[in-house]
Amino acid sequence: MGVIDVGVLGATGMVGQQFLRLLDGHPLFRAAWLAASERSEGKRYRDAATWRLAGPIPPAAADAGMEACVPGKGPQLVFSALDARAADELEPAFAAAGHTVVSNARSFRMQDDVPLLIPEINPEHLALIDVQRRARGWRGAIVTNPNCSTVVLAMALAPLRQFGIRTVLTTTLQAVSGAGYPGVPSYDIVGNVIPGIGGEEEKIESEANKILGELRGERVAMHPAIVSAHTTRVPVIDGHTLTVSIAFERQPDVAAIASALESWRGRPQHLSLPSAPPAPIEVEREGLRPQPRLDVDRGRGMTITVGRIRPCPVLGMKFVAMGHNTIRGAAGAAILNAELMHADGWLELD
Amino acid sequence: MGVIDVGVLGATGMVGQQFLRLLDGHPLFRAAWLAASERSEGKRYRDAATWRLAGPIPPAAADAGMEACVPGKGPQLVFSALDARAADELEPAFAAAGHTVVSNARSFRMQDDVPLLIPEINPEHLALIDVQRRARGWRGAIVTNPNCSTVVLAMALAPLRQFGIRTVLTTTLQAVSGAGYPGVPSYDIVGNVIPGIGGEEEKIESEANKILGELRGERVAMHPAIVSAHTTRVPVIDGHTLTVSIAFERQPDVAAIASALESWRGRPQHLSLPSAPPAPIEVEREGLRPQPRLDVDRGRGMTITVGRIRPCPVLGMKFVAMGHNTIRGAAGAAILNAELMHADGWLELD
Amino acid sequence: MGVIDVGVLGATGMVGQQFLRLLDGHPLFRAAWLAASERSEGKRYRDAATWRLAGPIPPAAADAGMEACVPGKGPQLVFSALDARAADELEPAFAAAGHTVVSNARSFRMQDDVPLLIPEINPEHLALIDVQRRARGWRGAIVTNPNCSTVVLAMALAPLRQFGIRTVLTTTLQAVSGAGYPGVPSYDIVGNVIPGIGGEEEKIESEANKILGELRGERVAMHPAIVSAHTTRVPVIDGHTLTVSIAFERQPDVAAIASALESWRGRPQHLSLPSAPPAPIEVEREGLRPQPRLDVDRGRGMTITVGRIRPCPVLGMKFVAMGHNTIRGAAGAAILNAELMHADGWLELD
Amino acid sequence: MGVIDVGVLGATGMVGQQFLRLLDGHPLFRAAWLAASERSEGKRYRDAATWRLAGPIPPAAADAGMEACVPGKGPQLVFSALDARAADELEPAFAAAGHTVVSNARSFRMQDDVPLLIPEINPEHLALIDVQRRARGWRGAIVTNPNCSTVVLAMALAPLRQFGIRTVLTTTLQAVSGAGYPGVPSYDIVGNVIPGIGGEEEKIESEANKILGELRGERVAMHPAIVSAHTTRVPVIDGHTLTVSIAFERQPDVAAIASALESWRGRPQHLSLPSAPPAPIEVEREGLRPQPRLDVDRGRGMTITVGRIRPCPVLGMKFVAMGHNTIRGAAGAAILNAELMHADGWLELD
Repeated sequence: MGVIDVGVLGATGMVGQQFLRLLDGHPLFRAAWLAASERSEGKRYRDAATWRLAGPIPPAAADAGMEACVPGKGPQLVFSALDARAADELEPAFAAAGHTVVSNARSFRMQDDVPLLIPEINPEHLALIDVQRRARGWRGAIVTNPNCSTVVLAMALAPLRQFGIRTVLTTTLQAVSGAGYPGVPSYDIVGNVIPGIGGEEEKIESEANKILGELRGERVAMHPAIVSAHTTRVPVIDGHTLTVSIAFERQPDVAAIASALESWRGRPQHLSLPSAPPAPIEVEREGLRPQPRLDVDRGRGMTITVGRIRPCPVLGMKFVAMGHNTIRGAAGAAILNAELMHADGWLELD
Repeated sequence: MGVIDVGVLGATGMVGQQFLRLLDGHPLFRAAWLAASERSEGKRYRDAATWRLAGPIPPAAADAGMEACVPGKGPQLVFSALDARAADELEPAFAAAGHTVVSNARSFRMQDDVPLLIPEINPEHLALIDVQRRARGWRGAIVTNPNCSTVVLAMALAPLRQFGIRTVLTTTLQAVSGAGYPGVPSYDIVGNVIPGIGGEEEKIESEANKILGELRGERVAMHPAIVSAHTTRVPVIDGHTLTVSIAFERQPDVAAIASALESWRGRPQHLSLPSAPPAPIEVEREGLRPQPRLDVDRGRGMTITVGRIRPCPVLGMKFVAMGHNTIRGAAGAAILNAELMHADGWLELD
Repeated sequence: MGVIDVGVLGATGMVGQQFLRLLDGHPLFRAAWLAASERSEGKRYRDAATWRLAGPIPPAAADAGMEACVPGKGPQLVFSALDARAADELEPAFAAAGHTVVSNARSFRMQDDVPLLIPEINPEHLALIDVQRRARGWRGAIVTNPNCSTVVLAMALAPLRQFGIRTVLTTTLQAVSGAGYPGVPSYDIVGNVIPGIGGEEEKIESEANKILGELRGERVAMHPAIVSAHTTRVPVIDGHTLTVSIAFERQPDVAAIASALESWRGRPQHLSLPSAPPAPIEVEREGLRPQPRLDVDRGRGMTITVGRIRPCPVLGMKFVAMGHNTIRGAAGAAILNAELMHADGWLELD
Repeated sequence: MGVIDVGVLGATGMVGQQFLRLLDGHPLFRAAWLAASERSEGKRYRDAATWRLAGPIPPAAADAGMEACVPGKGPQLVFSALDARAADELEPAFAAAGHTVVSNARSFRMQDDVPLLIPEINPEHLALIDVQRRARGWRGAIVTNPNCSTVVLAMALAPLRQFGIRTVLTTTLQAVSGAGYPGVPSYDIVGNVIPGIGGEEEKIESEANKILGELRGERVAMHPAIVSAHTTRVPVIDGHTLTVSIAFERQPDVAAIASALESWRGRPQHLSLPSAPPAPIEVEREGLRPQPRLDVDRGRGMTITVGRIRPCPVLGMKFVAMGHNTIRGAAGAAILNAELMHADGWLELD
């Protein structure tokens, strides 16, 4: 079976660039069709985009001609790095035109018939694709990954559901790359902290429960945990750090938490999907870890690192979790979603 | 009544420098005796210290000759900017020799007969001085101010005791000046976050309840709130930011919280003490505030700023608080303590 | 003589805010008319602007109603914090309508009949106003201050003209506030250096020679020094640092350079203008200084600090100079220009 | 031929850790003997060192037992990551005991009979080893690599010697990792610039000319270029950036400079040494490059990137150069030196 041509919507932006970097040399997918706003149409990618990642533009992408985001054109599978405003209209149009849209945008994450997927946690939610197609009359589909800080939280919570998660209180220290480009003005953040991110707390408080929820018939029963988030922005380039306190129904001890986290494996690991890290979560027992600069690239950016697991006098247990917000929290998440869909037959055309 | 000569123990360090800066032109106190380790003895201050604060060395201090920390020498009132190891032995020796030691060190904060003072909150705790003198046979005394992040938390909690504080969960984002000098290596913190500070969480979890506690006879009955702290270090120079979630016995609404905080006044305000800010707490209703760079110098560094008061799905109410860690959280705190002691007659010699 | 009402064009931007902060409580000028783009018209200033400076919005400005930038309306004297694109058209229109425009924009700095003023250096260049009025038929006028890094360089060079400056080679390390707001994306600069700033090197290489030039009849004879600039952007909020190497015709020694710099005074000092610092340049003989964080606020942001004066094996002499780019390099510069114009009778109406 | 066992002196420090990281999986060398101060003796490496690099401790090193730095013990080839004070005594003692010491310390760089080596530039300087052995009566030898900012400068100059380099003026913007650990206190550098580094300017001004010099008989004739350096420290983790202006005897144009730089190859490339990058210098023609964060890892940290080549009004030509200060500027440099020595037969024992 050969390599599958894929498209990237919004290929010139920060997440778009991360898609191209991660797809370079990918064993299953080839970025064959790069689309962005009409302003870029007809240009070569290297001229349309200002490459902002370390390392060179992948050579195949550099000379590719840019396309407009026209539904029906381009490959069956398209990754969407569109911002929400563009995604609102374009993603349904692509799905209606028969494309499978594997999206990083927030637009459809919380719709009942749209999978909000973390392949290690809720691969069975892909069954919503059939619901979605019936409900909307699409041949294609939209599958989404969560917000960049929700990913870190949801992954750290998933292996702990066995203890009965009742409430979760988290404070995020989020990297500037999470705001896209140009994103956060340097005047606001150099030597400073911004104690809030517009709309982010609501996303964390709701998305986590959909991901951790159980598919019952044609919809997801939200996980009942109550989540409260304080968000902050800090002068870090990549890597969202979360302090997390949890109240459980059956309070485990520190060793049980650590063991549950680090022994956790999901379908990506069982299937050996190309982007799956050997362990989705690594536990660091020593030192003041995780730290973005030291730990963000574990598992090529796909591993969440947890450290400082200890009792919380208020809720019961607390720890720190950290993950790469533009890889595990954006482009890498979507690619892993597509790899799972490929393995499970969701990319096959009839 | 004239200006009172005071000494500064540990005058060459970061907090010592902040003492000298704040005492420059002070209407009550004059830094007349500067002491540090024996290495500095006999040098002029300008040669013994590397001045690290913005602005010049106060001229009076610059040419002062350095003394060794010898109990019995120097003025009756001494401010201590010693680190805990030096303070362990020197502060009791000074108190035994008749000095009133107003200390920023952590060494004696949690001892039963030592006031841990925030003048707006617990001025009556100064009565412990008599207990202390009796118990230890000292003519002098030790009075302490809290840890730099505890100050911010305790001040934000004090006006809310009326609603019955049951539990408090805080995450701190602490500035590097809080670690003294040389403190945090830049290699560890530039573009990074360190998710923990050794010993700091325990201090916050215990000190706050002593400050908020009630003096009953000869000791302080700890406030019963349960406090849990996550500490982090961020690349900020001055200003500790805390996210705070609180569970109350009688849940107030956002407006009641805001009103309680900003209308709060204490004895320093009633007495118009020289270092007292007009309002100990300012509430910022708009924007993503407080931010260290924008708000740290309010009230010449003595005001705590609170913002983003909003419901917390888990504990009930949440907000962000921020204050200047080397002014309200260290040297300014000690000076305000001494101003209160002066006003209340604790500096008078028989 | 009473306080003079002034207008501020572009009052909501970063430099506009700095104007309002510096004019608050000014003994000569009162910010009575705040103008910005039509989007702001009719709003109160506090609603039209997002205040980004430390400290509160000056109360008088906070509730002022915003005006559109309509020539002929508003006070005779207007400060312009417009960006170059807006200034290109609006500043001449205001001058033609009779306003004296004291501008921070780059648009007209290098025009032959427009003073490019640093009051300590070339106060006599104000005579160009008459040339300008005759040539353009204006009742008003445009007077400009230099680019924010040129100010630092030109001030450090001015007292050294006596030694015959032949060539100057400088590398700038510029703060992010110099790029305005939103300016430099944090993703580009946190933990990084950007080795160039578009158009800036040309400005430094040409503006300095006009400022240091001699007024001969109706135009300025450019100073003959050859200037070469490397510009870089660094993660600093305020304060441009320049390394400077100079070749002189008559090589002075280090002491002669230091003495020439620190004894230098200009008309602002002789006239005791309100914004004039006691000494325009301070020389720091010890340590690795100047540093933005420690020295940027000297003279309330109007003093340039020079340090590390030492021989340069290539050009003869080298040192480091640093100044506040949005005060001495922008709003403070324009206000000092207007103070000089007031003292010299250029603001009187016939 | 098998893999050669090597020792690392000072294995627990920052450069020592970089040695272990780079030697992990090295095809020629195996870090078989790890030595540090007596404090570490007998501990496992993982307990003796606090690992500060991204990624895990190389597994082979983690459990290795630490040795004391005793000459005569350990493998014939030892890499030295000692600081200068320790190197002063230990390196000659190791050389006298028969070890070949490939050192990153500054102690012996400028001694007449010690090679100061950049394998692409002056591989023939290794002949000094024979001079050294005769003069000192050693069976072993000391070979050094230059200071971390000198490497960047010397490599950018080497291909341009053909045009006759007369004078060079450089300003460095140096990363904090260059100061080792704990190195620069964060209080001094967050949001700040330090305009000088003790002793560094002299090193740059002298070392470059030894490297570029010609071996004549038993000593190196220093290259006659006059070099002047301004050094600064900036809040960057890895990557020293240099602005460079050069006066040539025969002024080339921009294209000739670019072509000379990017076509330059040395013996490491011809021999395909394991650590040799394909091109020692890459020229970036577009954008504001090089930037530490984007370009520091080119050639696995062994490539110097040059950009913004343009005329300099003062000296003739100017550009920006950047390289990885702890790889090409320290541990990687020493390893490449040893690889060249191996290829040229200097590691063979009689």
